[in-house]
Amino acid sequence: MTSIPLEPLAVPTDSIGLVSPQTVLIEKPLTLACGIVLPSHQLVFETYGTLNSDRSNAILICHALSGDHHAAGFHKGDNKPGWWNHYIGPGKAMDSDRFFIVSVNNIGSCFGSTGPTSINPETSEAWGADFPSLRARDWVESQKLLMDHLDIHCWAAVIGGSLGGMQAMRWSLEYPERLLNAVVIASSMKLSAQNIAFNEIARRAIKSDPDFCDGNYLQEGKAPLHGLALARMIGHVTYLSDEVLGEKFGRELASGDFIDGTADPVEFEVESYLNYQGDKFSNAFDANSYILITKMLDYFDLAREYNNSPTEAFAHAQCKFLLISFSSDWRFSPQRSQEITDALIRAGKDVSYAAIDSNQGHDSFLLPNSRYQAALGGYLNRVANQLESSQ
Amino acid sequence: MTSIPLEPLAVPTDSIGLVSPQTVLIEKPLTLACGIVLPSHQLVFETYGTLNSDRSNAILICHALSGDHHAAGFHKGDNKPGWWNHYIGPGKAMDSDRFFIVSVNNIGSCFGSTGPTSINPETSEAWGADFPSLRARDWVESQKLLMDHLDIHCWAAVIGGSLGGMQAMRWSLEYPERLLNAVVIASSMKLSAQNIAFNEIARRAIKSDPDFCDGNYLQEGKAPLHGLALARMIGHVTYLSDEVLGEKFGRELASGDFIDGTADPVEFEVESYLNYQGDKFSNAFDANSYILITKMLDYFDLAREYNNSPTEAFAHAQCKFLLISFSSDWRFSPQRSQEITDALIRAGKDVSYAAIDSNQGHDSFLLPNSRYQAALGGYLNRVANQLESSQ
Repeated sequence: MTSIPLEPLAVPTDSIGLVSPQTVLIEKPLTLACGIVLPSHQLVFETYGTLNSDRSNAILICHALSGDHHAAGFHKGDNKPGWWNHYIGPGKAMDSDRFFIVSVNNIGSCFGSTGPTSINPETSEAWGADFPSLRARDWVESQKLLMDHLDIHCWAAVIGGSLGGMQAMRWSLEYPERLLNAVVIASSMKLSAQNIAFNEIARRAIKSDPDFCDGNYLQEGKAPLHGLALARMIGHVTYLSDEVLGEKFGRELASGDFIDGTADPVEFEVESYLNYQGDKFSNAFDANSYILITKMLDYFDLAREYNNSPTEAFAHAQCKFLLISFSSDWRFSPQRSQEITDALIRAGKDVSYAAIDSNQGHDSFLLPNSRYQAALGGYLNRVANQLESSQ
Repeated sequence: MTSIPLEPLAVPTDSIGLVSPQTVLIEKPLTLACGIVLPSHQLVFETYGTLNSDRSNAILICHALSGDHHAAGFHKGDNKPGWWNHYIGPGKAMDSDRFFIVSVNNIGSCFGSTGPTSINPETSEAWGADFPSLRARDWVESQKLLMDHLDIHCWAAVIGGSLGGMQAMRWSLEYPERLLNAVVIASSMKLSAQNIAFNEIARRAIKSDPDFCDGNYLQEGKAPLHGLALARMIGHVTYLSDEVLGEKFGRELASGDFIDGTADPVEFEVESYLNYQGDKFSNAFDANSYILITKMLDYFDLAREYNNSPTEAFAHAQCKFLLISFSSDWRFSPQRSQEITDALIRAGKDVSYAAIDSNQGHDSFLLPNSRYQAALGGYLNRVANQLESSQ
C-alpha cells in the first residue's frame, strides 16, 4: 500500500471561473444491460484544464445519485459553483493546471443527457417511466463512448464518490486497460438491506403521490413534488451524521415556544431545514430519474457475476486504486471501503486507503476537509508527476 | 450502583393465558400541559397478577409510540400475544405471580382510550386533528388518575421502553413519593436532531397524502393509508439495526432476477417486508394519533424546566432507577442511557445500568434476550423480595 502524506496541504481557493457545458449526440448504438438498445444518445459534459499533447492527462469524474456534469467553476449568471468545486480547480486536489478533467451527466439523469424527460424517438413523447432500467455498467459504457468521441485512449484516473465510486470500480473491471487509477470515495461493493430499505421508502413516497400518475406525470402536465420532496428528505437525513445534525440544529426552534400552558405549534430548526431541502430538490430533479437511479444503486453488486467473490472480480483490474472513507458515514461506512481494500489486497493489486475523520456523514465527500484534500491531492500529485516525467 | 447478576436466568415460557381489557371513565378533570382541560376521559387497561393486601405490589407499564394496553397474554380468539409477553407473565422478568401489573392505553392513542378518534363532547364529532397537543407529563397525569381510581398509593415500579422510559422518568420527578423504582429502557432525556428529522419526515408523509384532508379524514370517510404506511416504514427502519436487516434479508430477492439481458423487475425481500409492515400498520393505527405522539416525543426534554440541568432535575427524584440500553440501538443509543445514568449518579441517586449486547436495534426492548431478561428479572426479583419481607 502506498503511504498517504499526513501533513495537510494548504487548501487552494482559486476557481476555474466561468465554464460552459457541451452537448454531444453519440450516434453509436448503446446496448444496455437490460437488453434494450439506444440507437443514439445525448450527453452533456464539461471539461476543465487542457488535454496534453499525448492525450494522457484526462480524468473522468463520475457523479452520484443526484449529481450532474457541473462539477466545478461557475455558469454565467449563477453564483453557485459546481458540486465538487472544493476539489477541482487550479492547484486543487484534482488540479486543472495539470489534468484535463471530464465531467459528464449520465444517461437516465435529468440535466440534459438522454433520460426519462427526453423524447423517445419511437413514440415522439417523453420516455417517462418507460425509460429502460439501468445498471452502473450502462453508465460506464456510455462514458466509454464519450471517451472514444474525445479521442482519449486511457484515463489517468476515474474518480467518483458514492455511486460515482461504483462506476470507477466497474471501469476497472470492464475496461482494465483504459484507466491507470481508480479513486473510489465513500462507496461500497453493494448496498446493505438498510440502504435498500431507505431507497424503497423514497420510491414509495414518490409513487404514492397522486401526481405521479403511474410515472406519466409529464404527459399529464403534473409533477409529484410532494413525493419527491419526501424522497429527498429521507435521503438527506441518511447523508448526514447524527452528530452534524446535532451541531447544526440541536433542538433549536424555528417557530413557536415551549412555555407551559400554551398550545403554540413548535417547529424545530431541523424540521424547517429538511422541508426546505426537500422542496428545493423536488423542483430541480425528475421523479422518474430518482426512481431509476436508486434502483441502479440497489442492483449494483460488484462481484455478482464473479461467483460473488470480490477477489475474483478485482483479479481483472489492472489499475492502481485509492480508497477513501469518512468516519461518520453510516450510509457507506468505512467498513465498506475496508472490504474493498481487503479484496484488492487479496487480488494482489496496488491499493492505498485513507480513512478520514469527519463528522459530516456521507456528504463528507463533497465538503472541505484538509485531510481528505491531502489524501486525494497527494495521490493525484504523484499520478501527475509520473505522467509529466514520461512525456 | 447495584450489581446485575451476569448468569442468564432461564427464560420462562408460561403465559398469562386469556386476558380481557377493562374500560374506565375518569370523571375528574385533567388539565393538560397545553392548558386545555379534559372534563373526563376514558382509559382502557389490562391487569396481570393479583394486588396484595397492602396494595404495594403494583407495577405500571408505560407503552411507546404505537403501543397499547395489551402487553401480555391473549385476547379471546386471537393467537397473537401482547407486545411485552416475553417479559410479563408467571415467573417472567415482570412476574405476574408476585406483582400486580397495570398496562394502560394512553390518551391521544387509538385503542379505546380518549384520543383523536373519540367523540369531542363539545362538537359531537370525532376530535380528529383538533385533539389537544400532548406532552409525556399529560400521560403521567392521566396514569395518576387511574392509580387513584385503582386505590394504589405507591407503584412498586414504573417501567417503560423508549417513550415509555420517558414516562417513567417523568413519574420520578412529578410524583417522587408515588413510586419506589423507575425502569427506563432504551430511552433518552430528549430527542436528537436526527430523531426529530425522521419524525418530521413521517409526519410530512402523512400530511402529504390527499386522503389526510387536513386531518379531517374521519369526517370525510377517508384514511391516509399511503402516508401512514410510509411513516411506519421510516420508523421501522430506524427501530432495526443495519446488522439485523442484513441477517434477516441480506440482498435476497422476493421476485425477479438479475440475469443479464432481461428487464425483469427485481424486488428485494427487504422491500417486500417493509411494504407489508407499512400497510399492516396503516390499517391498525390512526394517523392523527401518529402525528400527535411523534410530536410528544419531539417535545420531551426532561431537564428543560430545571435550567436544562439533568442533575438538577433528578435531584427531585426519590425512587431507585434501573437503566437498560442495547448496543445496536441507533435511535436511542447506549450513550443516551449513559447520560441518564451519569446525571442520576451526580444527583446522588441509587442507579443500576445494564448495557445489553444485542444486534436487534431499538426493537431489542421488545424481543427475547437472556441478558436483558436477567437484568430486568434480577432487579425486579430484589424489589419483590423487599416487598414480601416487609409485609
